[in-house]
Amino acid sequence: MVSPTRTLIGSLQSSLSEQVLIRGWIYRLRELARTTFIIVKDCSGEVQCVADSASVREMSLKLDEPVEIKGKVKPDLRSRGGFEIEVIDISILNRVTHLVPFNSCSDISEIGIDTILAYRPLSLRNDSVGNIFKIQAAILHNFRQFLREQHFSEIITSKIVSSGTEGGTNLFEIKYFERSAYLAQSPQFYKEQGVAGLERVFETGHVYRAEPHASSRHLTEYYSLDLEIGFIHSPEEVIQLEKELLSYVFERLNQEYAHLLKKYRDKPLPEIINAPTWEFEECLERLHLHFNRTDLVDDLDPEAERQLCQLAESETGIPAVFVIGFPLSARPFYTHPRGNNGASQSFDLLFEGVEITTGGQRLHKREDLEQALTNRGIPPASFENHLQMFEMGMPPHGGLAIGLERLTARILHLSNVRQATLYPRDRYRIFP
Amino acid sequence: MVSPTRTLIGSLQSSLSEQVLIRGWIYRLRELARTTFIIVKDCSGEVQCVADSASVREMSLKLDEPVEIKGKVKPDLRSRGGFEIEVIDISILNRVTHLVPFNSCSDISEIGIDTILAYRPLSLRNDSVGNIFKIQAAILHNFRQFLREQHFSEIITSKIVSSGTEGGTNLFEIKYFERSAYLAQSPQFYKEQGVAGLERVFETGHVYRAEPHASSRHLTEYYSLDLEIGFIHSPEEVIQLEKELLSYVFERLNQEYAHLLKKYRDKPLPEIINAPTWEFEECLERLHLHFNRTDLVDDLDPEAERQLCQLAESETGIPAVFVIGFPLSARPFYTHPRGNNGASQSFDLLFEGVEITTGGQRLHKREDLEQALTNRGIPPASFENHLQMFEMGMPPHGGLAIGLERLTARILHLSNVRQATLYPRDRYRIFP
Repeated sequence: MVSPTRTLIGSLQSSLSEQVLIRGWIYRLRELARTTFIIVKDCSGEVQCVADSASVREMSLKLDEPVEIKGKVKPDLRSRGGFEIEVIDISILNRVTHLVPFNSCSDISEIGIDTILAYRPLSLRNDSVGNIFKIQAAILHNFRQFLREQHFSEIITSKIVSSGTEGGTNLFEIKYFERSAYLAQSPQFYKEQGVAGLERVFETGHVYRAEPHASSRHLTEYYSLDLEIGFIHSPEEVIQLEKELLSYVFERLNQEYAHLLKKYRDKPLPEIINAPTWEFEECLERLHLHFNRTDLVDDLDPEAERQLCQLAESETGIPAVFVIGFPLSARPFYTHPRGNNGASQSFDLLFEGVEITTGGQRLHKREDLEQALTNRGIPPASFENHLQMFEMGMPPHGGLAIGLERLTARILHLSNVRQATLYPRDRYRIFP
Repeated sequence: MVSPTRTLIGSLQSSLSEQVLIRGWIYRLRELARTTFIIVKDCSGEVQCVADSASVREMSLKLDEPVEIKGKVKPDLRSRGGFEIEVIDISILNRVTHLVPFNSCSDISEIGIDTILAYRPLSLRNDSVGNIFKIQAAILHNFRQFLREQHFSEIITSKIVSSGTEGGTNLFEIKYFERSAYLAQSPQFYKEQGVAGLERVFETGHVYRAEPHASSRHLTEYYSLDLEIGFIHSPEEVIQLEKELLSYVFERLNQEYAHLLKKYRDKPLPEIINAPTWEFEECLERLHLHFNRTDLVDDLDPEAERQLCQLAESETGIPAVFVIGFPLSARPFYTHPRGNNGASQSFDLLFEGVEITTGGQRLHKREDLEQALTNRGIPPASFENHLQMFEMGMPPHGGLAIGLERLTARILHLSNVRQATLYPRDRYRIFP
């Protein structure tokens, strides 16, 4: 065992001609007659280490073994960082004994999602997969960061609820001591309570849908980026907020992750601030005119989402569109109406072919909520506790929710939302 | 309806002698014969508005009503910000019609937790409660911020699992389509997988324990701040990391939230970097010597936690102590042994009288894990999928978990962890 003062590889440049200790995985390995080149990688970077082949041959080093190397940092103009490490001592911290289907340096673009998941730790060590989750973490970080700067408070609300927010279908039931409880489908009611208390709130957390169909864009458990804002007068204020929010996120990704992004997509992320907003009825007309669609009534389908993004791109240069004014009847009871013709103040954001956000303005008066419930044949008494909070100073408000996995998959042009989920869950998968 | 360009109250100082539009809640209200003083509060601050009593009397304004006010910003040396708003027009955005047990300006220190929860939105609008969650959000933010700066990647792992990490007791069962699944008690295995892939990972998310006893420090659902770090040689490295992490969090709270903190605690948060580390056996001896405790065998109890913090404070000035070397038999199977006398590399952090962290070094070799399982009478075959990942380059590693509600409660000297939980869950409570 050598001395334990470790230097992260990313900080090595300041240690030229010094003796250092590094730890990391063997990322690449090339053994020549006299010299063995070992590229070692840690969370901060990678470096080439050069060893005398005779001294390491007996160790039979293998790719992906975690090692500790004592060595000297020497200038080397052929190396990327301008230096390499001359190995003095090397120890293997754990042996690789499993026959692995790929390595962290392999091209795994042809390997299927089932194998990726079965070898999740190893796949994460491979940049093509690991970077998906680094970019996802950056999306999440910047979502929170923007909102914090805009006076939003982060809240944490319970995922164990006594009933569903939207009527009770697709709920997972939990055996909760002597009774039943359910997994929350959305923090909707809680974030409205948050607005009534703190005016602007956001939550990043799991939501659950007992979705029986496993599709490339549905999961039973996904991570929802939720926000709710008080004292608005229209859903257009929520749309404007989302434009600014996503612009903030996209600009930072374009700047700080440009080298990673370009491995997944041709162009930088678009200027979402210029995305158009179209009325739902107008969308149906466009779909009729350009694609001869006559089958849509009260909602869009995945094909229509692709078609509308295509139209938005050809008209505005931005492959995204906010669709507002969905039929009230197809949206939850708390949705605010838009005019008197059955439209709602509910909107979706379609981005590069897929719906990534649902948002809108909500009803904020008790009498309106009661009427909306009655219109749907739901007795208001069953929501009495919820309704009471609208009598204690609830301001007009609205909000939105973004599915993180779906947004990540769109940003990185991944065909399946499971590729942007560390441990995806669907009807057929609860492992690993 | 007045014009919709709203100014946040916190930004008013730059609008002197201009006409502005503000929105917020009526926080205080004082009606004199000629003049009515209305203090309006929004997410950014509060301001005094002055109206002609004759013009507002008919509106019967009430505390906590959300309003929109058009007015002129006028210098006023008696006001806190040096200005007030002369009201031109006021509209009530929603009426308060419920008989409320308190207002956002009330002293609610005597109001019990059940009433606070039943009126959660209103209680959040009251600073004494709302600020608990603002400080909690700041703890969370700074936890993430520190780790991001240290090359940690944020991960999101599933809360729906096919079995428990620690044996299967206290698990909540979910009806998952045609089979049973469980709510995750900890992201332990997942964060170890994260280390095998990304070296340094953290997760902030819910964990679930079907804890049948409702105590002032236990919840069935709590928010766990988890981290795991690879390439360590000892649990002392994890302890050092936690000292630096909590110092970062505490310093920012002491600086940025000083005015709020002092409403909850006498002194600023301590310099945790100087907290001592004591061996478990040594703790038993101290407890024997100073408190005549002879009843403890393989774990501490709440009283011992208080006593040890008291001893730490009198010896070092810091009311916190890391206890290391808990008996291996009392810790999960994946815990690394400490020497050969049955001690483990597992530690707790006791802070101001309560255990707020459990952490340690984990086993990283497959053969050691197999042996540990066998020693506990668990067939290794039942963990085969988990064990395999230790054959693919798992480095030595360790980590820790901090209960966010418990840490918040300790920092703010709240007697019950429910006071630091927006929607607490225990055996008897799943609502609101």
